[in-house]
Amino acid sequence: MTGNRIVAARSAMRERGVDALVVSVGSDLPYLTGYRAMPLERITALVVPESGDALLFVPELEAPRVSTSVEVVPWSETDDPFDRIADALPAAGTIAVGDQMWASFLIAIQDRLPGARFVDAEPLMATLRIIKDANEIAALRDAGHAADTVADQLQGIRFSGRTEQDISRIVTDLLLASGHDSVSFAIVASGPNGASPHHEATGRIIEQGDAIVVDFGGRIRGYGSDTTRMYVVGEPPDGFVAAYRVLEAAQDAAVQSVRPGVTAASIDAAARTIIENAGYGAAFMHRTGHGIGLDAHEQPYIVAGNEMAIETGMAFSIEPGIYLPGRWGMRIEDIVAVTTDGVERLNRSSRSLRVVE
Amino acid sequence: MTGNRIVAARSAMRERGVDALVVSVGSDLPYLTGYRAMPLERITALVVPESGDALLFVPELEAPRVSTSVEVVPWSETDDPFDRIADALPAAGTIAVGDQMWASFLIAIQDRLPGARFVDAEPLMATLRIIKDANEIAALRDAGHAADTVADQLQGIRFSGRTEQDISRIVTDLLLASGHDSVSFAIVASGPNGASPHHEATGRIIEQGDAIVVDFGGRIRGYGSDTTRMYVVGEPPDGFVAAYRVLEAAQDAAVQSVRPGVTAASIDAAARTIIENAGYGAAFMHRTGHGIGLDAHEQPYIVAGNEMAIETGMAFSIEPGIYLPGRWGMRIEDIVAVTTDGVERLNRSSRSLRVVE
Repeated sequence: MTGNRIVAARSAMRERGVDALVVSVGSDLPYLTGYRAMPLERITALVVPESGDALLFVPELEAPRVSTSVEVVPWSETDDPFDRIADALPAAGTIAVGDQMWASFLIAIQDRLPGARFVDAEPLMATLRIIKDANEIAALRDAGHAADTVADQLQGIRFSGRTEQDISRIVTDLLLASGHDSVSFAIVASGPNGASPHHEATGRIIEQGDAIVVDFGGRIRGYGSDTTRMYVVGEPPDGFVAAYRVLEAAQDAAVQSVRPGVTAASIDAAARTIIENAGYGAAFMHRTGHGIGLDAHEQPYIVAGNEMAIETGMAFSIEPGIYLPGRWGMRIEDIVAVTTDGVERLNRSSRSLRVVE
Repeated sequence: MTGNRIVAARSAMRERGVDALVVSVGSDLPYLTGYRAMPLERITALVVPESGDALLFVPELEAPRVSTSVEVVPWSETDDPFDRIADALPAAGTIAVGDQMWASFLIAIQDRLPGARFVDAEPLMATLRIIKDANEIAALRDAGHAADTVADQLQGIRFSGRTEQDISRIVTDLLLASGHDSVSFAIVASGPNGASPHHEATGRIIEQGDAIVVDFGGRIRGYGSDTTRMYVVGEPPDGFVAAYRVLEAAQDAAVQSVRPGVTAASIDAAARTIIENAGYGAAFMHRTGHGIGLDAHEQPYIVAGNEMAIETGMAFSIEPGIYLPGRWGMRIEDIVAVTTDGVERLNRSSRSLRVVE
C-alpha cells in the first residue's frame, strides 16, 4: 500500500515541478512508509527523488524498530546525517519539505544546498492524504464509534465536587478502555473556563450549575477521533438552553450541507449564519472544522475564504461553538465523512445537552 | 523570572550577531514566556527583536489560555499570521529560529523576508537552558525521585504472562500515581526486543527467562524524568549476568567521572572503555547520554567528539547499554546533576538486576 503512495507522491511532484521530497517527523512519513519517527533531535528523513529509489535515513539505534518496504539507511552517532541526506537530494531545483519537520533540520539541509529552492510539502501531500480510502474511513469510523461510547459513559459519572483534571483523567481512561490505541487530548472546561476553546484542564472544582465542555480524541490504527459533547450539573446557567438550541441547529445545518461539490466555505457559512442570526456571531470566533486523518488537524479546513470543493472520501470535523467570556462556553463536534452523494456522521452519540450530577 | 530570561536571550543574541529571535512549538517558548504552544497548524510565535518589545502572536481562540508577562497579539481565523510575524521581524539581518518550529512555518516566514538570513536558535538558546537554576534542579530532582518509586513498585508486579503493552500501561499509571503531571514514554522491551534501544511496547507475552528493559519518564512542573532499570523473570539468559556486571561498572564509572571541567566526550569514554575492554564495544552503538530539562533530550550530549566542558548546573542522563540482536538487551540509566565539585545522582533506586515473577 505504502509503495503505491510513493508512486502517487511522485506523480504529484511531477505535476508541481518538485524535484525531490523530504519528510521527517509528522504524519507524511507514516503515510508513505508505515513508520512514524520519534520527535527527537536525531533526524529520521525519507528522501523521495523524482526518479531513483526512495531512501529512509534513520538513527542507527532506531533501525531495529523500522519495518517498511523502503530502503533503510542507518546513520551512526558520530556521522553527520545532514551531509548524507543532502547528498541524496538535488543540489539545484525544488525540494518539498514535510510541514512538521523541525526548522533546525531544514536549516541544516538548506546550509548544505544553497542552490536549491525549498517549498512546503503540505499542499502536495494534502492532494494525496485529503481523500481517504476505505481502510482509512473504516479506521476513522471505528475511532468515532469508540469515542461515542466514551461520551455515553461520561453521562453516568458524577461531575460535581471533582476537578477538571479528575474528569480529564477519567476521559483518558475511558478512551483507552473503549479501544483507542492512544489518547491525543481530553479537554474538560467547566463554568467560565468553557469560554476558552482549547482550555487545559485545571484544578477547578466543578459545581452545581456548571456547563462543561468535554472535547476528546485518541487514535485507532493511526487515525483520530475528535468529538465534543456538553454536560451540565443540574440546572443550566441563564440563557444557556436557548443558546444551545441555536448551536444544535447550526451544527446540524452544517452537517446536512455536506456533499460532493459544495465548498468548504459554504459549510462554515451554514453554521455561522444561524449563529450570527441569533446574535451570537462575535461569540463564535473559530472556524467550523478541520480535516482529520493521521493528523489531528489537516486539510480540508472548514473556514471562510476556503473555496476548495468538497469531494467524496474527505473527512473533517463540524464543531461550531458559542463562547461568552467570564460566563460559559459550548461546542458540539462530530467527525463526518463525505460519501458519493452526501455525508456519513462518524459520531452518532446524542448531541443533546446531558444533565449530570 | 521569564522576563530575566528574555534579557539573557538578548544578551546572547548580541554576542552572536543575531538581530531577532523567533520561537514557536517546543520548549524555548515556555522557557522564555511560561507558555507552551500546542503543536498544531495555527502558529504561535514569540518574536524577540534585538531592541523593542517582545511580542507573542497567538491564535485568537487560544488567547484565553495564555498567561504571560509578554505582550500577546491574537490573530484571527481569517488573518495571515505570517504577514504579521514577518512585519515584526527585520527585513534584513540574521534571524534565529527555534529548533522545533515547523518547517512550513519557517518557509512561510522565509518567503516573506527574502533578504534575511535564518539560523538555528538551538546553540543560542542552549547557552541559557543548559545551566539549570535551583528551581529547575529541584523539579528534576522531584521527577527523578518519583521515577525511582515507579522502578521499585515494578518489582512487586508479575511480568510473566503479561504483554509488553500491559506492563507499559502499568508503568504509565504508576508514573501518574507517583506525582508526575504527564507521561512522556514507557518503553518495555522484553527478550530479544530488548536489543532495540527505542523499542515500542508490543503484544509479545513475557515469559520465563526473559530480561526486560524498562525505560520511562514523565514531567513534573515541566521538567522530565528518564530512568532505565532491568528486570528478569526467573533465571537470566546465558551470559547475561556477566555482561550486566560490566554494564553496572561502566555506568558507575561514567557517573563518577562527572565534575565541572571534564569534557562530555570523556564521560562517554569512561563508560565505553569498560564495555569495549570486556568485548562488547560493537554492542553499545549509542551515545552515553543526553541533557534533560524542559526537553526530553537537549544539550549537553554525552557523546564521542563533544569536547564541551561540563559545568555546575548541567543535568543529563548516563545510560550505557549492551545489545545483542536476536538475544537480549540491557541498559542502566540515571539522571545526574553537576554540583560545584562533583555530581548528584537524581535517581537513587537500586541499579541491580531485579528478579521478578
